Amino acid sequence: MSGQAGRLIGVGLGPGDPDLLTLRAARLIGGARVIAYPALAGGDSFARSIVAELIPDGCREIVMDVPMTVERGPAQAAYDRGAREISAALETGADVICLCEGDPFFYGSFMYLHARLADRFTVEVVPGVTSLSACAARAGLPLVARNQQLTVLPGPLPAADLRDRIGRAEAFAIMKVGRHLGKIRAVLAEVGLLERAVYIARVGLPDEHVCALADAPDRAPYFSMVLVGQEEDPWL
Amino acid sequence: MSGQAGRLIGVGLGPGDPDLLTLRAARLIGGARVIAYPALAGGDSFARSIVAELIPDGCREIVMDVPMTVERGPAQAAYDRGAREISAALETGADVICLCEGDPFFYGSFMYLHARLADRFTVEVVPGVTSLSACAARAGLPLVARNQQLTVLPGPLPAADLRDRIGRAEAFAIMKVGRHLGKIRAVLAEVGLLERAVYIARVGLPDEHVCALADAPDRAPYFSMVLVGQEEDPWL
Ligand SMILES: C[S@@+](CC[C@H](N)C(=O)[O-])C[C@H]1O[C@@H](n2cnc3c(N)ncnc32)[C@H](O)[C@@H]1O
Ligand SMILES: C[S@@+](CC[C@H](N)C(=O)[O-])C[C@H]1O[C@@H](n2cnc3c(N)ncnc32)[C@H](O)[C@@H]1O
Repeated sequence: MSGQAGRLIGVGLGPGDPDLLTLRAARLIGGARVIAYPALAGGDSFARSIVAELIPDGCREIVMDVPMTVERGPAQAAYDRGAREISAALETGADVICLCEGDPFFYGSFMYLHARLADRFTVEVVPGVTSLSACAARAGLPLVARNQQLTVLPGPLPAADLRDRIGRAEAFAIMKVGRHLGKIRAVLAEVGLLERAVYIARVGLPDEHVCALADAPDRAPYFSMVLVGQEEDPWL
Repeated sequence: MSGQAGRLIGVGLGPGDPDLLTLRAARLIGGARVIAYPALAGGDSFARSIVAELIPDGCREIVMDVPMTVERGPAQAAYDRGAREISAALETGADVICLCEGDPFFYGSFMYLHARLADRFTVEVVPGVTSLSACAARAGLPLVARNQQLTVLPGPLPAADLRDRIGRAEAFAIMKVGRHLGKIRAVLAEVGLLERAVYIARVGLPDEHVCALADAPDRAPYFSMVLVGQEEDPWL
């Protein structure tokens, strides 16, 4: 009976520094009976590591081992299995707290569970600080003001698409840099924006790194982004 | 001497619900000696109202009365005065906590102070949950996943600019709706996206309102936005 089923709660954890959790997220996790989160197949869960100190004793943990393959099939199968395990828990009446790095609906892993379960269970989403906001803050780089436009692009897009979309943006962020760094740097050089581009990796973590994109290392970690803020705005 | 000056700390407060403050923001405000914030000229400060319960006794408050005029001059003069008062406080060695609704570098009022003071003082920015994340969460509307692009547009843009930019976006948000609601609705109808558009006003506040844009009231408050999420993604 759906009236007695638990709620699926997608909780944004912010980009990695536990101090950037919201009060609501911290309280929900501290009181959780069941949590669920993705982990690199056979490895650690970044989401879990952010809140490890807050997880109560005796809390049940549903781990989704998500392989990082280029084909989608294996990851989809992992979320299918996770969704089945989560629905079984929800049907016992327990709320399930799904841990999600950053904000759940901004390129978040929670969207895979939402797509599978939102039609059958009550869903709540607790928004979180995005890596975008955290990277801009860390770089001291104002993003957009007044009537400016912000575009967020994924680094895996083909160079021609990136070039095309960047050409019309006033301020933009390129997410998921990782092994696409060389391509992104080349595109920004081509459109004359390399000098304004900032590279930020692993913000809020012990090995964080901020520098001009021109000086970025050739191998970027997955948790990195490139930001180009607004031009100076005389109207501020 | 700059070694002894205080730090200018721009603190994002999230979109209005005090429960969406970050742990760091709550701690900084709870320990503040000087805070600064904008208020509607002669009226209340929304930013201050979010954290009213946390401001310690005896904390000094620097209020910037910002008139809501169409010309920029009067608002700029208010920030000029505020920046002068804040620098005087920083020069005594006190940190100044600047309260900013949402995230400071995402259309935030803190950018006006940053533009005036960042070259002379040490600045720190504490990122916050944006109204964009909070509105998407509240509407149950996934924004962007995988290799999709997100565009953020300000509602005051002329209709032709909105149409042009929306035409190429996969998912987008239109901020600062207010009196631009009619224009925005007409543009979305024209490009065939009215059915997918969601209207969210004053999220997290007692009078919050979420509905299809087609059903939105004719007069929107300033704190409202329109969201069009990704199309359903078979790859999730
Ligand atoms: C799958 S997306 C998750 C985004 C997340 N839901 C959010 O709201 O920030 C992963 C991408 O986010 C960015 N990212 C996440 N955490 C980051 C961090 N701590 N430092 C820099 N970039 C980060 C990187 O671009 C990374 O490739
Ligand atoms: C000057 S911008 C400030 C944005 C803020 N810095 C942020 O990160 O969300 C004001 C616009 O943000 C949006 N907004 C802010 N708070 C909101 C709320 N509680 N509900 C809906 N929209 C909100 C509206 O579009 C409003 O016109």
